Amino acid sequence: MKMIIHIFFTLSLVSSISFASVQDFCVADPKGPQSPSGYSCKNPDQVTENDFAFSGLAKAGNTSNIIKAAVTPAFAPTFAGINGLGVSLARLDLASGGVIPLHTHPGASEVLVVIQGTICAGFISSANKVYLKTLEKGDSMVFPQGLLHFQLNSGKGPALAFVAFGSSSPGLQILSFALFANDLPSELVEATTFLSDAEVKKLKGVLGGTN
Amino acid sequence: MKMIIHIFFTLSLVSSISFASVQDFCVADPKGPQSPSGYSCKNPDQVTENDFAFSGLAKAGNTSNIIKAAVTPAFAPTFAGINGLGVSLARLDLASGGVIPLHTHPGASEVLVVIQGTICAGFISSANKVYLKTLEKGDSMVFPQGLLHFQLNSGKGPALAFVAFGSSSPGLQILSFALFANDLPSELVEATTFLSDAEVKKLKGVLGGTN
Amino acid sequence: MKMIIHIFFTLSLVSSISFASVQDFCVADPKGPQSPSGYSCKNPDQVTENDFAFSGLAKAGNTSNIIKAAVTPAFAPTFAGINGLGVSLARLDLASGGVIPLHTHPGASEVLVVIQGTICAGFISSANKVYLKTLEKGDSMVFPQGLLHFQLNSGKGPALAFVAFGSSSPGLQILSFALFANDLPSELVEATTFLSDAEVKKLKGVLGGTN
Amino acid sequence: MKMIIHIFFTLSLVSSISFASVQDFCVADPKGPQSPSGYSCKNPDQVTENDFAFSGLAKAGNTSNIIKAAVTPAFAPTFAGINGLGVSLARLDLASGGVIPLHTHPGASEVLVVIQGTICAGFISSANKVYLKTLEKGDSMVFPQGLLHFQLNSGKGPALAFVAFGSSSPGLQILSFALFANDLPSELVEATTFLSDAEVKKLKGVLGGTN
Amino acid sequence: MKMIIHIFFTLSLVSSISFASVQDFCVADPKGPQSPSGYSCKNPDQVTENDFAFSGLAKAGNTSNIIKAAVTPAFAPTFAGINGLGVSLARLDLASGGVIPLHTHPGASEVLVVIQGTICAGFISSANKVYLKTLEKGDSMVFPQGLLHFQLNSGKGPALAFVAFGSSSPGLQILSFALFANDLPSELVEATTFLSDAEVKKLKGVLGGTN
Amino acid sequence: MKMIIHIFFTLSLVSSISFASVQDFCVADPKGPQSPSGYSCKNPDQVTENDFAFSGLAKAGNTSNIIKAAVTPAFAPTFAGINGLGVSLARLDLASGGVIPLHTHPGASEVLVVIQGTICAGFISSANKVYLKTLEKGDSMVFPQGLLHFQLNSGKGPALAFVAFGSSSPGLQILSFALFANDLPSELVEATTFLSDAEVKKLKGVLGGTN
Repeated sequence: MKMIIHIFFTLSLVSSISFASVQDFCVADPKGPQSPSGYSCKNPDQVTENDFAFSGLAKAGNTSNIIKAAVTPAFAPTFAGINGLGVSLARLDLASGGVIPLHTHPGASEVLVVIQGTICAGFISSANKVYLKTLEKGDSMVFPQGLLHFQLNSGKGPALAFVAFGSSSPGLQILSFALFANDLPSELVEATTFLSDAEVKKLKGVLGGTN
Repeated sequence: MKMIIHIFFTLSLVSSISFASVQDFCVADPKGPQSPSGYSCKNPDQVTENDFAFSGLAKAGNTSNIIKAAVTPAFAPTFAGINGLGVSLARLDLASGGVIPLHTHPGASEVLVVIQGTICAGFISSANKVYLKTLEKGDSMVFPQGLLHFQLNSGKGPALAFVAFGSSSPGLQILSFALFANDLPSELVEATTFLSDAEVKKLKGVLGGTN
Repeated sequence: MKMIIHIFFTLSLVSSISFASVQDFCVADPKGPQSPSGYSCKNPDQVTENDFAFSGLAKAGNTSNIIKAAVTPAFAPTFAGINGLGVSLARLDLASGGVIPLHTHPGASEVLVVIQGTICAGFISSANKVYLKTLEKGDSMVFPQGLLHFQLNSGKGPALAFVAFGSSSPGLQILSFALFANDLPSELVEATTFLSDAEVKKLKGVLGGTN
Repeated sequence: MKMIIHIFFTLSLVSSISFASVQDFCVADPKGPQSPSGYSCKNPDQVTENDFAFSGLAKAGNTSNIIKAAVTPAFAPTFAGINGLGVSLARLDLASGGVIPLHTHPGASEVLVVIQGTICAGFISSANKVYLKTLEKGDSMVFPQGLLHFQLNSGKGPALAFVAFGSSSPGLQILSFALFANDLPSELVEATTFLSDAEVKKLKGVLGGTN
Repeated sequence: MKMIIHIFFTLSLVSSISFASVQDFCVADPKGPQSPSGYSCKNPDQVTENDFAFSGLAKAGNTSNIIKAAVTPAFAPTFAGINGLGVSLARLDLASGGVIPLHTHPGASEVLVVIQGTICAGFISSANKVYLKTLEKGDSMVFPQGLLHFQLNSGKGPALAFVAFGSSSPGLQILSFALFANDLPSELVEATTFLSDAEVKKLKGVLGGTN
Repeated sequence: MKMIIHIFFTLSLVSSISFASVQDFCVADPKGPQSPSGYSCKNPDQVTENDFAFSGLAKAGNTSNIIKAAVTPAFAPTFAGINGLGVSLARLDLASGGVIPLHTHPGASEVLVVIQGTICAGFISSANKVYLKTLEKGDSMVFPQGLLHFQLNSGKGPALAFVAFGSSSPGLQILSFALFANDLPSELVEATTFLSDAEVKKLKGVLGGTN
């Protein structure tokens, strides 16, 4: 009897005290429209614990490529629950001699922690100053938003790191792909970088660019 | 004649000087998709003054429950016009002996003003320091974002307060409901709080929890 | 003995698990430099519960003035603990016939709740549309950021309301004071408002303006 | 053969290293729902270079009106690519004797640069202090968010300026239109501004207001 | 000769094209005043690569305590270069049977990745719903801002995880320490949690609380 | 007599209704400490109209350099009043054949308007897609935050443009200077860009780099 009363009170209490329309999270619904703030939210009734977990970082990326490295992101919509929460993750795999080429993240600063191996990492400031560190297992380093930076396996075996971003959508622009892996006319690349025509055409050939 | 010219000029002026696509507000359309920034916006042509007003705080909440208290929120979508405007309100009713149990607002700081009665309020910082005040009619107190806090009627008669939040969607997590009013297994509650099995099971009984 | 061990473990635990440099709040130090984000923070060791409470709203403002009204703010540095927390409060007292003249808050939206009396409130959108409501005790209304709005006692006795803002520093620009209570040359006021010279000079006389 | 291998490696590299769901921009789709963060995003596959360019500022606005001036905005959805990017532009044309009347932008600060002619510009702070400058070609001036300001052609020939805002949706409220170009009852205008009935009715006549 | 000319041109170019006052980062100066946006910035001339790197996460935290676990943060001012960059890291060590008790981060969402072992993690929403996952090596999970969550070693050996936050100052409030490791009077704990006096006093004894 | 009473009332009104501690702006004090939110604020009593105006954009930049172009910023602390207001400006001068080389702004999106001449401008997205436009006088174009972009004089005579940013501190990283005008070791440049040793050393020679 007492129990029943308690439950009765509890239910009325829950309804009078909870904020019915609270939006704790906004799990990405990839079928809805996107807005500048991210993906539309999935119906909360259909959200499960699986939306907040992601197993895609468990497996090493494929490093059989010219950079001997791979970046595996944990972003929406694959990692649906992270949408709009202002943080994200990625996994870096660097085989021996591997390198994550110079790149920027337009939308967030990055912090890296080395899990295995030795990584030489660096970034370049707006004042063109270079900040360079050799990082061992357990070391971390921060790369301020939007600045060119790189990570290079400077040890003997493979290297593994995780990186985190202060945005659910940090973006990623890889310099040499931006320059040489599209149809930006060679003369424009040359005029805006001071690189030689021969060099530009050679790298367009290597990276799949045209024009 | 002069009037006609004026109106003519005015209309052309209004069309040449106003910003046609200006978004002063985004009244919640509960039928549209939600985004991390809130509800979709109602068609501006259908917005009326009633969207910006709310009478739901005029009536005392029902305090016939185990906490002898009620929280009445003024949030979207019921208070449609407040969507996306970065502020919101709620009404606290505390009958004699009533208490708003320990809780947090994940998305905003809160400021309270006492309208009637005497309220003992407090919050606990990340450094586990307690900030405790007894507030009389007209007194206000601020509770920093995300920290555990409570309000307790420490006077003789009923107490009334209004609280404001720096977000349209501050959230509300009530500690004992989070612990004891759901199916979180008792052994997990115990392992993560140091509470005893007997205590956890007793409160799950009181608050409607299972497992 | 068990107690001693517990305390020993606890202390080591607290030091290994707490985030020593956590900034839960930033109580205003009015003697330090200000930044775009607000006042400098007081040394946390000197912060007390009194920094988070404010009694300045308990007393009615003095309405013996031409508007028969008063606005009493609860802002930093007087309400030191609210600095940087993204929310603030003010008290509106309107004697019979009192009015808070047309004004804007450049930095935040406002939400109002009527505590006593009857208030006619309204705002004007960028599209020059008027949103007007008569509010009774307990009614609330939201005024979107930066738009002209007013509150007027439309009842018989005095009126009291509290207003909240989604910023610790919402700002306040009262239209007629901005126009007529300073040294902005009359010909500039006239050219930029279409008001007549006679009207401008009359109101400069009333409100203390020059030029 | 070497080329083929390169292209093969490149493609696998691009797929393993790029962030497939990256949202660099959110070009406005005027047919989708709006949210507090702006317009819905157009399908990225349908975005072209034309979405990021805008020719609407190339032509002078029509200054044949009572203010002898025109404001031409470069905002979404017309300038679709600017949606959500936190910046926008407008063009000010002021014929001889022209004026952009006192106005505010609720959502952003503004910075102006004079391209042609001489402009007297000013703003009024919350403390009712006036900041006034005469600007020649090439001079710039900043107007803090939400404060009343104006621009007046104080030279002999026409004047041209461009203004930029720190928001894609800065808003625009023109004071005299807000007061006199709608149905806000004259007695409310008078009570909330101290203007005389005659003045209010005269300007309502001029600017097309009623009531 | 050509080289000399180039260098000459370059220097003049650098001075004419670089933004001298650019603030790419704000390395924490622990001796300067703090503001709501974080620590004061160190003089850029004294910033070195060491400010952006941190070795404090390389070593396992001491898990010889009642929770058999340790949290090691990588925050300002120790990790000086991360100040103001909107992201941070921490290391979780859980010995066999270890647990990070229920806690919240008032200022940021958290994302976790398991490096070693098996972790049972969960959070509770504002709607009192529990989201629970068992995570193996390489699995990640996100915990929305401000919600109660925990991590528990549910495997046989030790477990290691790194967690990232979308703020340089996420905060950390550990529930049982907030309740039982300070001088919050027992009767207030009881009234605001429904816990029994015996339970509260027992845990205050264990965790070092008084009153 | 009436005047005296009015002034008396006005003064008491001003003191009872104005928000004494309002922070409309934060004019940069270059001698105070900086914070992540910008420069410290100058004492408001010492702020004048000159702090909000800037004449540094009136004069063409010196284009006698290898890029035949100049960028002149309007930023704090030189343009002191713009500090913290979320917007800024710069002037681009391009002599015949001039180019603003590929660069990024880590902290803001940019919008450009052509004042004179013809400019070919473009940016590259994270998906390595190129968005390219030829802009005539009066045309504008937006460049999303952090993406590589350039502006090139593609007409016959000189070109002039103004650009605006949605931040007071947008930053500027010029690609070829970041790569070749510092001491980043050649082998690191090569490994992280795929450029040849000969090309890197040649450009380090041209742009003043070492190592």
